[in-house]
Amino acid sequence: MAAVVAATRWWQLLLVLSAAGMGASGAPQPPNILLLLMDDMGWGDLGVYGEPSRETPNLDRMAAEGLLFPNFYSANPLCSPSRAALLTGRLPIRNGFYTTNAHARNAYTPQEIVGGIPDSEQLLPELLKKAGYVSKIVGKWHLGHRPQFHPLKHGFDEWFGSPNCHFGPYDNKARPNIPVYRDWEMVGRYYEEFPINLKTGEANLTQIYLQEALDFIKRQARHHPFFLYWAVDATHAPVYASKPFLGTSQRGRYGDAVREIDDSIGKILELLQDLHVADNTFVFFTSDNGAALISAPEQGGSNGPFLCGKQTTFEGGMREPALAWWPGHVTAGQGRLMDRPIFYYRGDTLMAATLGQHKAHFWTWTNSWENFRQGIDFCPGQNVSGVTTHNLEDHTKLPLIFHLGRDPGERFPLSFASAEYQEALSRITSVVQQHQEALVPAQPQLNVCNWAVMNWAPPGCEKLGKCLTPPESIPKKCLWSH
Amino acid sequence: MAAVVAATRWWQLLLVLSAAGMGASGAPQPPNILLLLMDDMGWGDLGVYGEPSRETPNLDRMAAEGLLFPNFYSANPLCSPSRAALLTGRLPIRNGFYTTNAHARNAYTPQEIVGGIPDSEQLLPELLKKAGYVSKIVGKWHLGHRPQFHPLKHGFDEWFGSPNCHFGPYDNKARPNIPVYRDWEMVGRYYEEFPINLKTGEANLTQIYLQEALDFIKRQARHHPFFLYWAVDATHAPVYASKPFLGTSQRGRYGDAVREIDDSIGKILELLQDLHVADNTFVFFTSDNGAALISAPEQGGSNGPFLCGKQTTFEGGMREPALAWWPGHVTAGQGRLMDRPIFYYRGDTLMAATLGQHKAHFWTWTNSWENFRQGIDFCPGQNVSGVTTHNLEDHTKLPLIFHLGRDPGERFPLSFASAEYQEALSRITSVVQQHQEALVPAQPQLNVCNWAVMNWAPPGCEKLGKCLTPPESIPKKCLWSH
Repeated sequence: MAAVVAATRWWQLLLVLSAAGMGASGAPQPPNILLLLMDDMGWGDLGVYGEPSRETPNLDRMAAEGLLFPNFYSANPLCSPSRAALLTGRLPIRNGFYTTNAHARNAYTPQEIVGGIPDSEQLLPELLKKAGYVSKIVGKWHLGHRPQFHPLKHGFDEWFGSPNCHFGPYDNKARPNIPVYRDWEMVGRYYEEFPINLKTGEANLTQIYLQEALDFIKRQARHHPFFLYWAVDATHAPVYASKPFLGTSQRGRYGDAVREIDDSIGKILELLQDLHVADNTFVFFTSDNGAALISAPEQGGSNGPFLCGKQTTFEGGMREPALAWWPGHVTAGQGRLMDRPIFYYRGDTLMAATLGQHKAHFWTWTNSWENFRQGIDFCPGQNVSGVTTHNLEDHTKLPLIFHLGRDPGERFPLSFASAEYQEALSRITSVVQQHQEALVPAQPQLNVCNWAVMNWAPPGCEKLGKCLTPPESIPKKCLWSH
Repeated sequence: MAAVVAATRWWQLLLVLSAAGMGASGAPQPPNILLLLMDDMGWGDLGVYGEPSRETPNLDRMAAEGLLFPNFYSANPLCSPSRAALLTGRLPIRNGFYTTNAHARNAYTPQEIVGGIPDSEQLLPELLKKAGYVSKIVGKWHLGHRPQFHPLKHGFDEWFGSPNCHFGPYDNKARPNIPVYRDWEMVGRYYEEFPINLKTGEANLTQIYLQEALDFIKRQARHHPFFLYWAVDATHAPVYASKPFLGTSQRGRYGDAVREIDDSIGKILELLQDLHVADNTFVFFTSDNGAALISAPEQGGSNGPFLCGKQTTFEGGMREPALAWWPGHVTAGQGRLMDRPIFYYRGDTLMAATLGQHKAHFWTWTNSWENFRQGIDFCPGQNVSGVTTHNLEDHTKLPLIFHLGRDPGERFPLSFASAEYQEALSRITSVVQQHQEALVPAQPQLNVCNWAVMNWAPPGCEKLGKCLTPPESIPKKCLWSH
């Protein structure tokens, strides 16, 4: 069985591979790190994972030359907590990226959020800085947009991108348009200096993000080791692509966005090779959560054989495509990773846990009847009675257990009376108990919202004449529906 | 990594599971065996293997309650040789189901074939008869249609079905329609007593095959142990379904056929449970070769992430969906199977071999330029330069090697200079050498064709007034294009 890996432990990969690589080559220089993080891309969206139109030749080649992880998990089925976990190596419940406003609610960082990544958390670029690395984030930050949460205050040396999702356009009265930053200051806003045509889907952002990546690599390749976090968001609704890619996919606009990203990744890897630094650069590709089936197929991806998608703790919400590429190194490191438990949280609640091939659901919930009746469906066409529930169902006394190898779609719970169930339950219970005994939940950071904290007047707005006036400060509990 | 299993060794599964089961229950009675063999169904056609419309609830449940094999192989990319291997446990090159008329040519048993399964071969039902089993074949035989090859002469006690594919309709002058047999005698012909409407796709054959299965199980369940070989062919072009299923799939007519078969298998498994024999019946589901992409999507299936399809020795030609189901037994037997080499033959030629995750191609060929230019494409949309070749390319000196885990689509050969290539080549070379030293090729059975041997006057034709007059006997070399 292939190794199970969690996003909170993706650094370990590097250590394992690095150790293996060092042994082989004796290279003393720490490797560059390139983390390619997709937005809402699903397990089933790459040719190498079985997407039938096979439109990801560069990613498929990356897999062929590197490592493919069939069982890689994000730490959360929603963007901000997943990204916080990726950069801290800690579950959202430990790093504060969750809410206690209600039980089992997903929360993230819209403009009105007051919180963000706490200073007490150590991010990967902070650790790397001590080892002499220069770090850049290109694209979506999503760990808080207020000044104290700025990525350059948390270890990054450069930034080109945005603190929030590219939703909009807004009227700049009730709600400002989202800013785009270069380093410390904003350089414009989405739908203003950085247009996204919602009707045609045209936007040049992926091309800009590509240039930012290429420029940074060219500048850094011959000096300090670098960490580049390339967090593009073209596959998050509203999905976009640049003109040469629009209409080129057999899969519609979502596929156009995937094709442009695949093409860009091809160019990035090619540059690493041209600069002769490929054998000293660890490249890791994954996504922040499962495909947003609610937007599919035109604006959302595919989770392959897995149940439901983004927002849920079924496999479709957290099982991710994942590839590692490091010429001359990854082969040596192959297969040394061990199975480990996967914990599926939704907000403050441990919804499920997987150990080996068995997954136990302690709680099941997709979304409320109220939301569902309004047409919000996280599991379109996949109603599984007693599993994709619209009430938060308590199974803590008698968890639903699935065998993910035989039933990746989580549709056929093991019989409670079976020996297999009893044995799996006993093993999982023991691991969950250990986890919970050792767990120190952080102060939740995603409880308080305030319209006054939105991106009215980000640093640099004066130079551009783009400062807006915030409304009166009224802190209130954020309302999280799902 | 999941176990690799070859169709020539599927009996071993039974032995392993049986031993495990016996140990657990001490049951002295040999288990019934139910072999569900699909026709041209691909790896990607079941929900549990990721088919997005998820229209196989009964097969998916069977997987969830049993075993799912991600790495199961047929012994040949074409129907007759694959089926001969399934029933003999021997590769076609050993059991005679191949041709030497040209190198690396697929051959099968059309009406004009003179050969068939040799008497020297021991078929599973012959072995089972000695152990007191009663055996029935329902559906397509395909191991030769002349009297000496009749399934009741090779161990089966009952037959309802046909010796050849359901091609037609023919004019009964140049070529007779294919007969349908009950036991020793024909009971009609396709497109006559057993209509298939090529325009609408309507045919009741799957329903008839279902009834035959249910009747046999009901009759046998309380007496002797039984072996039922359920070899339905609705998913082989011309694809058909009965009226209640036509137009019900999101996948078109092919999906209608899959849905009817899935529904039928649900009814068969339900009967086993109603009769309280499920815990003493080993059920195995697989397909004879990969999906016929040349007929897809309306009349052909999907091979998931794999390259090409039926007729080829790429993964899409021979990697099959496979499920085992035996309540109370299969769980115990899980994971005891070892990896073993897979040999990919095309006719007389060893095209490729897989050991562990590495596959070496000694020869590559899809089909001739001549055929390809006529529109016959076994790899639609999947041209891989230097791999999906239209000349029979010799790589025996320097095989193309792929890592099937990182590159299931066989698109990125390992670099000849890499340590991984050298190591894999050395391991595979040694295993191939052992295989070839031990190999005793059989007399080829698929070399001679003769229009006089077609189904002009099958046994029973007199009673029905359906005997036709054969033409003059002119034996000639069969012409195999691919």
